[in-house]
Amino acid sequence: MTSLGDKGEGHRETTTKVLNQGSWTQVSCPCCVSEQVEPLVLIQLSDNIQPVTKRWLISLIEVSERDGGAALLAHPGEDECGDVIVVSAPRCTLLRATEDLGLCKKYHNGDMVAFSYNDRDNFRNVDDMQEFLTLAERQYIVKYELDFLRAQKGQKIPGVPESQGVLKARENICQKLEKAGVIKDIFPLHDKQRLTDLCRNWYSGKQIWGQPLDSIQAYFGGTVGFYFSFLDFYTWALVPPAILGLVLTFLLPGGGSGAGVVKEQAGGVVEVDDSPSVSGHMVQAVFSMLWSTLVMEFWKRRSSSLSHRWGLLHLAERFAEPRPGFHGTLGINPVTGRLEPLFPEWQRQLRVGLVSVPLVGFFLGMVVLGMTGFYHGEALAQGFHQDSDSLFSGALLYLPSVAHIIYTNMLGNVYRTVAMQLTEWENHREESSFQNHHTTKVLLFTFFNYFAVLFHIAFYKQDLSLLRKRLASLLIVTQLVNQCTEVVVPFIVDRFFSAPQKKQQEDDPNVDKLRAQRSLPPFPGLFAEYIELLVQFGYLSLFSCVYPLTAVLLLLNNVTEIRADAYKICKLFRKPFSAPVSNIGVWQTAFEVLGFVSVMSNCWLLLLSPRVREFCLEGGISGRNIILFAILVEHVLILVKMILAFMIPDEPDWVRIKREQIEFHSMQALGKSLKVSGFKCT
Amino acid sequence: MTSLGDKGEGHRETTTKVLNQGSWTQVSCPCCVSEQVEPLVLIQLSDNIQPVTKRWLISLIEVSERDGGAALLAHPGEDECGDVIVVSAPRCTLLRATEDLGLCKKYHNGDMVAFSYNDRDNFRNVDDMQEFLTLAERQYIVKYELDFLRAQKGQKIPGVPESQGVLKARENICQKLEKAGVIKDIFPLHDKQRLTDLCRNWYSGKQIWGQPLDSIQAYFGGTVGFYFSFLDFYTWALVPPAILGLVLTFLLPGGGSGAGVVKEQAGGVVEVDDSPSVSGHMVQAVFSMLWSTLVMEFWKRRSSSLSHRWGLLHLAERFAEPRPGFHGTLGINPVTGRLEPLFPEWQRQLRVGLVSVPLVGFFLGMVVLGMTGFYHGEALAQGFHQDSDSLFSGALLYLPSVAHIIYTNMLGNVYRTVAMQLTEWENHREESSFQNHHTTKVLLFTFFNYFAVLFHIAFYKQDLSLLRKRLASLLIVTQLVNQCTEVVVPFIVDRFFSAPQKKQQEDDPNVDKLRAQRSLPPFPGLFAEYIELLVQFGYLSLFSCVYPLTAVLLLLNNVTEIRADAYKICKLFRKPFSAPVSNIGVWQTAFEVLGFVSVMSNCWLLLLSPRVREFCLEGGISGRNIILFAILVEHVLILVKMILAFMIPDEPDWVRIKREQIEFHSMQALGKSLKVSGFKCT
Repeated sequence: MTSLGDKGEGHRETTTKVLNQGSWTQVSCPCCVSEQVEPLVLIQLSDNIQPVTKRWLISLIEVSERDGGAALLAHPGEDECGDVIVVSAPRCTLLRATEDLGLCKKYHNGDMVAFSYNDRDNFRNVDDMQEFLTLAERQYIVKYELDFLRAQKGQKIPGVPESQGVLKARENICQKLEKAGVIKDIFPLHDKQRLTDLCRNWYSGKQIWGQPLDSIQAYFGGTVGFYFSFLDFYTWALVPPAILGLVLTFLLPGGGSGAGVVKEQAGGVVEVDDSPSVSGHMVQAVFSMLWSTLVMEFWKRRSSSLSHRWGLLHLAERFAEPRPGFHGTLGINPVTGRLEPLFPEWQRQLRVGLVSVPLVGFFLGMVVLGMTGFYHGEALAQGFHQDSDSLFSGALLYLPSVAHIIYTNMLGNVYRTVAMQLTEWENHREESSFQNHHTTKVLLFTFFNYFAVLFHIAFYKQDLSLLRKRLASLLIVTQLVNQCTEVVVPFIVDRFFSAPQKKQQEDDPNVDKLRAQRSLPPFPGLFAEYIELLVQFGYLSLFSCVYPLTAVLLLLNNVTEIRADAYKICKLFRKPFSAPVSNIGVWQTAFEVLGFVSVMSNCWLLLLSPRVREFCLEGGISGRNIILFAILVEHVLILVKMILAFMIPDEPDWVRIKREQIEFHSMQALGKSLKVSGFKCT
Repeated sequence: MTSLGDKGEGHRETTTKVLNQGSWTQVSCPCCVSEQVEPLVLIQLSDNIQPVTKRWLISLIEVSERDGGAALLAHPGEDECGDVIVVSAPRCTLLRATEDLGLCKKYHNGDMVAFSYNDRDNFRNVDDMQEFLTLAERQYIVKYELDFLRAQKGQKIPGVPESQGVLKARENICQKLEKAGVIKDIFPLHDKQRLTDLCRNWYSGKQIWGQPLDSIQAYFGGTVGFYFSFLDFYTWALVPPAILGLVLTFLLPGGGSGAGVVKEQAGGVVEVDDSPSVSGHMVQAVFSMLWSTLVMEFWKRRSSSLSHRWGLLHLAERFAEPRPGFHGTLGINPVTGRLEPLFPEWQRQLRVGLVSVPLVGFFLGMVVLGMTGFYHGEALAQGFHQDSDSLFSGALLYLPSVAHIIYTNMLGNVYRTVAMQLTEWENHREESSFQNHHTTKVLLFTFFNYFAVLFHIAFYKQDLSLLRKRLASLLIVTQLVNQCTEVVVPFIVDRFFSAPQKKQQEDDPNVDKLRAQRSLPPFPGLFAEYIELLVQFGYLSLFSCVYPLTAVLLLLNNVTEIRADAYKICKLFRKPFSAPVSNIGVWQTAFEVLGFVSVMSNCWLLLLSPRVREFCLEGGISGRNIILFAILVEHVLILVKMILAFMIPDEPDWVRIKREQIEFHSMQALGKSLKVSGFKCT
């Protein structure tokens, strides 16, 4: 943080002048000395914290890593007794962590190269941490260093009762302090000036078509950056199916080849009238299958070029320390040669295969059971009401629905707990692997919950007009409700109810301004956002051939969704920590799997469609043969999808070349270094 | 080749004393000086070669790489006018090429580490090339160096007529000389003593159960080593289905649940009698689906541990020079920074996608057309014969078969040429990629040829008893014929007809002994062997549920096949060059694809089986529902297969750790070396 340039100094002052700069940790390392320290993370302590505990914690944060500290900068807030510690990071710590995380940065020749501390002088902007690392990266590094604070030996935490305050050797200090109630919260601080700039470029200004993805990634970090990039990409991808839907609905209303003839023969039943023609059906089904493949393949390319652009292509998570929650017997990691907890891979796989998979299956079974029970109960209630047409039996008609809603909610709550504990118990070494397993579990259940009814209608009841109605109502009603609850209500609360308080806070010129960020609710994560997109994608690719306007509705929804999500994350929640990631993780797979399921469902829906049935009857094709034909078509389409997915390379050529360059250089470097360093592991 | 130890010196003498050691190239490099030079490769020149051409070629072979030579050792045979050049390689060239190829060798601590020339002293046996590199590797390196001889500038080849003998700058010299007829052949030499040892351990000794895979790999190289390892693995894997087949055939003859009842009701039709029961059918079908997945998954694990054992896990083909046949505009390779021909990836993909795929499709269509024509012709001929029962019409009955055989043969020949030229035209940079694309093309066609009839019977005619008969006859007759033509005939020819000549040759104490190896036919490659295994695997996994003894017959066949193939490659053919490879390449994929197709075919066969049909009729289940049920079962089984394949890791844990170690070290090395070397590419 030496030598701040002119650029951007203005708003740095506004954020840093809040704190008395003199109270920051004094650093001895000459390259880390700076006049202004940027507050990055706030540790909210309990109200009744003892000064001795706070001093002990601050010293831990300040002490070098060799002595078991985090080598960060700490600021005690107003005074020694306050209930906050503001944390920042000196240059050396930031640079070392950048290497540990495997982030790529701009080399002097303009390439993105995995950062190396030894070679730091050849990287651009390496003297100015605010240019070199993004805000999100700096804040994540602080969290990363805090998370890996370990007790050097068994010791008592000063100022904390004996019952809670004893640390075992190598115990995770932050986790322990949170359990003991000493630390209430650790969260990254907003930078008001940058946030205002970001908001102006993002949603409140004239920017209608694009999003400032680089700034979003810089301010909020990798996961958020990828979410909004995906949302952006996906929204644009909705344009072709939307146009097709409009054409099929308004330009070819029940038209196409021979559909008119069928209509006359069928005697003009109203139900048939509003369903698309055979050829329209076919076009829509085949189009949506190919579309879903192409979208995901091109997203992979986009995703890999984004991750190269953001320096996230060579993350070294595998070789870094395990995540804080990981436990195992202490031993030497055979790959890196470092002392750390070890847990055998096969044991994790056994746990996943023999416990997690069956349990998740059980819960999915419970969902199906609930649905069956609901339909059964409804039939019973209806029968009873028909027999005895009383007020009581009329009220009883609501019982199955109510019971089903209560059942589903309870099941959902239980499942969420079970899923989290199962994933903890599976004991994943890497954070990304933990996230993927957890997301997969919740995802499967949520998806089942959303789609069970639609599948039931499509495959069991085989009632296409009901499916169409249901789909339309889901698309219109639930999205309206969603947008309301997600944005409008919090917006109103924020604008009209919290505004006076806020006004008061803004006059408050001291550390309370930072502390006040805690009053916002914590960011709930992107799960709900992704699942919304996935469910949309499901509606579109699985069932859209019965309701061609789906894409149009989704497109309208997404255009507002982008702004709404942006507003939400900027204004309504506390800033989240965001780990560097190189793609959207398990969501990618989920979308791809849905693509394959969509082939099956579309073939099935085609088979069911009354037009196709009439067409067959007319042509004298037996039911058996038409089914066999449908199976053949399905298999061929799946094959085509797989060939397409295989043919389109997952990364653009230029990214591949960059990646291979790095691989080649590291291979060469290995050869050269062997002679120098010797190959130490056994 | 300095300091030959005592060990193995005996048989080295027998192979090297054939040549006058004094006539070898004199080396100046002190580490390459050796008393005895091992003849590795023989270049057979045309009979009427000019001494000046031979001298020019020898000097090219001898000169250092800096001066555009191959830096190898050459020996002119008996005298300057002879029509052979014997080639060997000095230590420095071998070591440098080992690094270029990315071979792993034993480090001083026992690990397999990618060889680095700078660090050569830390590798075991680095002073004794015959221990350090396998014979196959040494010979491949000689070929590799010869293949990359390029003309430094445009020049005339001395002693060759102007019309053929002008080299353009950077033209491939060996290819040019072969085209000009100067070089007739380049082939690796057998080492009689080693070969005798290998044969004794392999097939002529008491070794019945195992094969000396390491020695095979050392003597014949990677591709051959992997083929025999796969054959071995696959033969063992046949034991469980063979046992199941025996049990189903002899212990449960038409038995199982309720099949007896069905038989009585069906009135004891003979055809029904010899087909397995419903439950037997089911067991066989489900078993063979799971079996095929497990076999391929465990083979992947075996394959990766073999390639680690043989030091083939980190081949650097991507970063090496392109294959000799590769052409393109000269430019700087963006990855390695070397000057070489470049050809854009997208253009190759366009060629594959827009020309190769449709052309292959066209030929497959021609196969189907041929088959349809045959059936049509047969029906016509039969009709004609029934109408006019004459001798002419009786003879005409054979016409369709004869025409079909001629058609198929011609088509096959045309296709082989087309496939080779198409693959050349696709212009693959790496040899392995070329091989994979070529193999895939030929494979698809051959497979189609083999299975078209069976699929026609199973899916179109839907005649299970015909399928059973056909399968049994194919298994028994074609395998007998195969074994005869492959081994017995060549064996007899070799033993009784060539023996006198051979005897004479063995008395001949000079270079003719080496030249004589040319009299053997060149090794035809492993394509035919692999396709035989693939077709077997196809019979077993696709159709075995109609003929449970398939696995037993295949097991018997393979036990003899191993010995026969071993005899063939050792005695009946010239020794082949064999590139280092890290797996069986595209064959792996072919077997896996077959595994998926097997699910579909088994579900279909179950649906067709008369027992199942009767069972349904009896249970009052409609045909439509049973088909839908079969589809459901198929999809679930494919899902199970995919989950199984995903759950079983592709490499054993210890190989993964070794691999990650190397990745970690090369990442670290890259960081360290950046500072030292700078990052040169732009």
